[in-house]
Amino acid sequence: MTPDSVLPAGTDVDIETLSYRLAEACRRMSASVTTAESCTGGGVASAITAVAGSSAYFETGYVTYANAAKQRLLGVSAATLETHGAVSEATVREMVAGACRDSGASLGVAISGVAGPGGGSDEKPVGTVWFAWGEANEQRVACYRLPGDRQRVRELAVAVALLGLIEALNADQDSPDASASRKIADRG
Amino acid sequence: MTPDSVLPAGTDVDIETLSYRLAEACRRMSASVTTAESCTGGGVASAITAVAGSSAYFETGYVTYANAAKQRLLGVSAATLETHGAVSEATVREMVAGACRDSGASLGVAISGVAGPGGGSDEKPVGTVWFAWGEANEQRVACYRLPGDRQRVRELAVAVALLGLIEALNADQDSPDASASRKIADRG
Repeated sequence: MTPDSVLPAGTDVDIETLSYRLAEACRRMSASVTTAESCTGGGVASAITAVAGSSAYFETGYVTYANAAKQRLLGVSAATLETHGAVSEATVREMVAGACRDSGASLGVAISGVAGPGGGSDEKPVGTVWFAWGEANEQRVACYRLPGDRQRVRELAVAVALLGLIEALNADQDSPDASASRKIADRG
Repeated sequence: MTPDSVLPAGTDVDIETLSYRLAEACRRMSASVTTAESCTGGGVASAITAVAGSSAYFETGYVTYANAAKQRLLGVSAATLETHGAVSEATVREMVAGACRDSGASLGVAISGVAGPGGGSDEKPVGTVWFAWGEANEQRVACYRLPGDRQRVRELAVAVALLGLIEALNADQDSPDASASRKIADRG
């Protein structure tokens, strides 16, 4: 996958607003969320829990900054880390799967990237961030090349992580299964 | 313990500055730190990892927002939670002990409080926040009644958490044992 060079134009990166939109989507879908963070270092969990009442849909967040933490808490395999590196599609898939398995949340997000200023390479320059949204058995992934300094890359990564959670919940709402569930619930 | 009604006058609550002071203290003492957060929800881990190079002294953070997460990830006992509640000295002691055991960090901080606007009681009004700093076998604890709204209580709690880590590392430096270690290191 070739990273997008910039966020889509008009992307909402107001983290507070996104956190409230996520709260609303979680309540509407009776969903719970979890976070498995590397480069954002707890920023997504902090944003989610800034909303009063977030304990209704958020129980556990994992800040797995080191590879050892990714393995121990989330069950990311040593082979994956060695073959693909921490900033990779395979790693974020295993991170979010592990977070959902351990926490029991219905939806999770994992983030691993190069926030800089060091740590970049030709293949993975500063700003390269991998995301996975989903659960133990199915994930959607994306890779962005986010602009700016360390602080800005981390802020944008938090926003993208929240946006993906909101989109996943809205997609569930629009799916036939979800519509069917809602109809059943409406009759209940 | 009676909570202090306010932070000591002149307390530095510039989170960015505190994160850099912590980085310096960790490097000087060859220490590593971990975080076990409830009401701050990842804010302390996020502040620590805002510093480039923080992977040298920070590997794992635990956002244990629900009691179930405190039990599963940190080994807080059900009896402690039932008897004393999540916002208590006993709970933060067990949280930081569990975080240090699991992560292998040399020093940890745990935070559990009532950020509001709901959840307060006569005994534990909004703004009541318990902290523990230490390791598996020894902790220092404090309880503050922090002023302001939910956002401000969380910000102040992050600052107090960081300050306590810095103070613990500086105290180690000033102890006879630490002085001896330094002298040995100076000769090495």
